[in-house]
Amino acid sequence: MHPFRKYIHTYIELPESDWTEIEACLSRYEYKKGVVLLEEGKICKKLYFLESGFMRFYTYKDGTDVSKFFTAPPYCFTSQRSFANDLPAQENVDTLEDCVIWEMSKEDAFKLLDIKSWNTFVRKLTEEVQYFTEQILEEIQNKTAEERYLTMIEEGNILLQKVPLKHLASYLGIAPQSLSRIRKKYMDDQRKLT
Amino acid sequence: MHPFRKYIHTYIELPESDWTEIEACLSRYEYKKGVVLLEEGKICKKLYFLESGFMRFYTYKDGTDVSKFFTAPPYCFTSQRSFANDLPAQENVDTLEDCVIWEMSKEDAFKLLDIKSWNTFVRKLTEEVQYFTEQILEEIQNKTAEERYLTMIEEGNILLQKVPLKHLASYLGIAPQSLSRIRKKYMDDQRKLT
Repeated sequence: MHPFRKYIHTYIELPESDWTEIEACLSRYEYKKGVVLLEEGKICKKLYFLESGFMRFYTYKDGTDVSKFFTAPPYCFTSQRSFANDLPAQENVDTLEDCVIWEMSKEDAFKLLDIKSWNTFVRKLTEEVQYFTEQILEEIQNKTAEERYLTMIEEGNILLQKVPLKHLASYLGIAPQSLSRIRKKYMDDQRKLT
Repeated sequence: MHPFRKYIHTYIELPESDWTEIEACLSRYEYKKGVVLLEEGKICKKLYFLESGFMRFYTYKDGTDVSKFFTAPPYCFTSQRSFANDLPAQENVDTLEDCVIWEMSKEDAFKLLDIKSWNTFVRKLTEEVQYFTEQILEEIQNKTAEERYLTMIEEGNILLQKVPLKHLASYLGIAPQSLSRIRKKYMDDQRKLT
């Protein structure tokens, strides 16, 4: 089964005829690690489905890049506000690994909204992204960077394997040196326990 | 025009016949200040439209309530994750003022998704809420509590008039005393400028 079709099926039932229409709107691309797919200030005109690889959303603050979100496959991504309203994007998106990505034009993504299954899929996906964003917000409001990092370890969060330390540090809102210290302290504590 | 109809019109065109169906699903309620409409751990079964008043979303941390979001009229609110997936709500919602609220059952809200205009309205609203959440997250990631408070003053943010200091402080992630100090410093700086 097509990886995007399989992914959509995790949200909704998708009739064969609907999939045929969706599939006709998709193009497959391969990107090397380190490619910037979307730049702050430009208008995002595509909906992306990440089949494999790893993506990062980031902004610049005082000349330094600050990581905001990460996307692990299989998942959709876009600069939603820019995409939906033709506004300049407020973030950059780059590949943290070699990636296989399926792309759909904005025109096609909107045209497909006439198909009920696609419409429901987009709504459910938006609700899920909203929930994830709220979860991150809640974590930041209620936990220190160290607590958030330890929660990541407890959960076996995929970011720990995929994201370089400097990006993980800026995502946690701390300097890379601070994250190194937190990590060393955790390792020492673990060693004492064994 | 019905306040909810007027509000929906800010997102989409709404044919008369669609509005007739939507209106049939609405019930009007008046709540006094301080009423808890939704409790953490319970399943949220309603979509709410706030016609007048002011709402607060909050959680408890170490026995103290922490404000997460506020809703100013006219706007819709619900505990989205709980509402969409029959899961226990992760927040409480109470009235910060006397409120007029229109309520729709979950069954009706989902049934109405068969109407294209309502479906599009729900999608656009979810996208907007997602954007607002991202904005708050971005502010927290990039600004100190003091900077966020000063931005609120610059923007003439309605929260400054509507939200008691203790709730505003917990929303900013600081103690009420710290917010008082920041506010006093700002007033002193303003006085020096004049």
